[in-house]
Amino acid sequence: MNVTVRGQTRHYRTVTFDRARNTVLLIEQRLLPHEFKIVATKTFRETARAITDMIVRGAGAIGATAAYGLAQGAFAFRGNDLEKFSAHVETVYQFLKAARPTAVDPVNAMNDVCAALRAGQTVEEQQSLALAAAEEFANEDVRHCEKIGKHGAKLIHNGMKILTHCNAGWLAFVDLGTATAPMYAAQAQGRKFHVFCDETRPRSQGATLTAWELAQQKISHQIIADNAAGHLMQRGEIDLVIVGSDRTLGRTGEVTNKIGTYTKAVLAARHKIPFYVAIPLSTIDWNLKRGFDIPIEERNGNEVLGAWGVNKRGQREFVRIANPMSGARNPGFDVTPSDLITGIITPVGVFKPKELWNRRRELGFAS
Amino acid sequence: MNVTVRGQTRHYRTVTFDRARNTVLLIEQRLLPHEFKIVATKTFRETARAITDMIVRGAGAIGATAAYGLAQGAFAFRGNDLEKFSAHVETVYQFLKAARPTAVDPVNAMNDVCAALRAGQTVEEQQSLALAAAEEFANEDVRHCEKIGKHGAKLIHNGMKILTHCNAGWLAFVDLGTATAPMYAAQAQGRKFHVFCDETRPRSQGATLTAWELAQQKISHQIIADNAAGHLMQRGEIDLVIVGSDRTLGRTGEVTNKIGTYTKAVLAARHKIPFYVAIPLSTIDWNLKRGFDIPIEERNGNEVLGAWGVNKRGQREFVRIANPMSGARNPGFDVTPSDLITGIITPVGVFKPKELWNRRRELGFAS
Repeated sequence: MNVTVRGQTRHYRTVTFDRARNTVLLIEQRLLPHEFKIVATKTFRETARAITDMIVRGAGAIGATAAYGLAQGAFAFRGNDLEKFSAHVETVYQFLKAARPTAVDPVNAMNDVCAALRAGQTVEEQQSLALAAAEEFANEDVRHCEKIGKHGAKLIHNGMKILTHCNAGWLAFVDLGTATAPMYAAQAQGRKFHVFCDETRPRSQGATLTAWELAQQKISHQIIADNAAGHLMQRGEIDLVIVGSDRTLGRTGEVTNKIGTYTKAVLAARHKIPFYVAIPLSTIDWNLKRGFDIPIEERNGNEVLGAWGVNKRGQREFVRIANPMSGARNPGFDVTPSDLITGIITPVGVFKPKELWNRRRELGFAS
Repeated sequence: MNVTVRGQTRHYRTVTFDRARNTVLLIEQRLLPHEFKIVATKTFRETARAITDMIVRGAGAIGATAAYGLAQGAFAFRGNDLEKFSAHVETVYQFLKAARPTAVDPVNAMNDVCAALRAGQTVEEQQSLALAAAEEFANEDVRHCEKIGKHGAKLIHNGMKILTHCNAGWLAFVDLGTATAPMYAAQAQGRKFHVFCDETRPRSQGATLTAWELAQQKISHQIIADNAAGHLMQRGEIDLVIVGSDRTLGRTGEVTNKIGTYTKAVLAARHKIPFYVAIPLSTIDWNLKRGFDIPIEERNGNEVLGAWGVNKRGQREFVRIANPMSGARNPGFDVTPSDLITGIITPVGVFKPKELWNRRRELGFAS
């Protein structure tokens, strides 16, 4: 999407590849929203490090980064020995996989790259095929988000006030995002609307990343405390909710997403406000039979006990907000049952949560 | 309640009066939870200033502070001329009233003091009666909270997990508090339970003041992000909710309280978790006919865009969390309808919200 730096506006993806320099270019997400900077990782090891260190985060974005990292590693090989090259690629693959061991997107993306490069007869051919496959993974991510935007934009009418929670924006993907894609598409179609960004404590991704994205795209928006959405709904100030998802159960339509999503869904149901979840196909879990079995990550309590921000001298700093003698509970995600979800916006179309299973072939169910 | 400072535990009220020094003693609430300090205001002007500057806050606490401030001002008068004394008391009254112009408790408290002192025949007698009336206001505040505790403690059983929002604790009153009084009473009766304190963004009174109170009283507790209560309820980890109220409508049973209270009530209703509101009688509004007409204060957006805390050098500091180009909406309160409230805990007993009007004589309805 567009980013304006010192008055100059240009289009960026979260991750791109510079063939001439064999370098991966990443938006340094840890500095946002306070500073916009592009980081160039010059070796596959640096690229893996950027994933580990959270310079880049978000399902689609780390998938594409790993794919480019694998191509980058392939290009670093000198010589014509295909066997040695294959062993080298395997080393690169394992190194990048270890960068974020629990994530599925890097593995899926790198498997695509490996499958593609095997068609090459020479090292040089395999190197080129690896890059082509990585580019294809990134482009496919963008096309999926475009389709989510196309389907979701129909839900956004002129004058609407939309609530979103956390960041399922373009920074989490290669471009456009999921929950934000319908907003960007509706904007491109000339519609005017207003977005409320939930702060999304404890890590405040709504107040930092989503608000930054919307500001860059010049979409009218305001940040609200997570406590305020209920009141705004009660006073008729929210017409639509769109959120993302980390894991959606294909069998039940239950949605796992950032802590607080469930609360917003309960509130929306009480006020008969449509509640939509925008998802890429890669986040559908076709195996698990009930949401209650989804393990909920209990994160470090310090996130709840304080906050990162910028002090008056312009320095990034963590401050302890809470009573020094008190501890915290910090579940990172929650599960929203299907009866609270109006529809799931996918690249293939918008479905009732319970419809996913019947549409499973269309939605990429593989077995 | 008890406060432990450098290993020494003793009982404090939020406000007391030192007759020998004609001084009001206040807990400096702006430094909590990071530092515990008693401030002595030596003149009624300093006492008024302490109210304005939020050294003391909370309905009952500022009522008692104004009452003591009026007695303090009365004692500062030198001479025997009753007419001059009355004019002086009127000046003190107006000065203290102006310290927090929208609050009703200081006015009610000072009216009690003025009514009492008029029975005196001499300046000296009137001065003594003023102090006696101020002490009586403070003691009555404590007795009311004791009764709330007595009635509310019956709701707390061994092993319960209780959610509270914001701070309706002893720091907001002279002692014991409202939402916390049942917890302190249940603890005194030997019951064991656990309290989840909502952080209560944007001003974090739950993470700071309520958590501090509970830690001082050695009540088992944890702070949670405002986003987490829904998930904990869904997983069966909350058995009871008790909150306070800034204004309860006697005619409808609707409750105005800190932003986010309504959300917790909606969640509790979905999960069939009892939701109680503990109130002193002074917060019942017998006039207003519907909650929708309660004006909701829109507070400064900067509260949402950042947070106060203590940095690693131990200094209090405000950090900007949010995107620098984004603004905020910041409603300070919300209104919970009576159908979501299991009961209202008053000093007179626990009532269904709709019962308040029929019990209005008992509850101090005056007209």
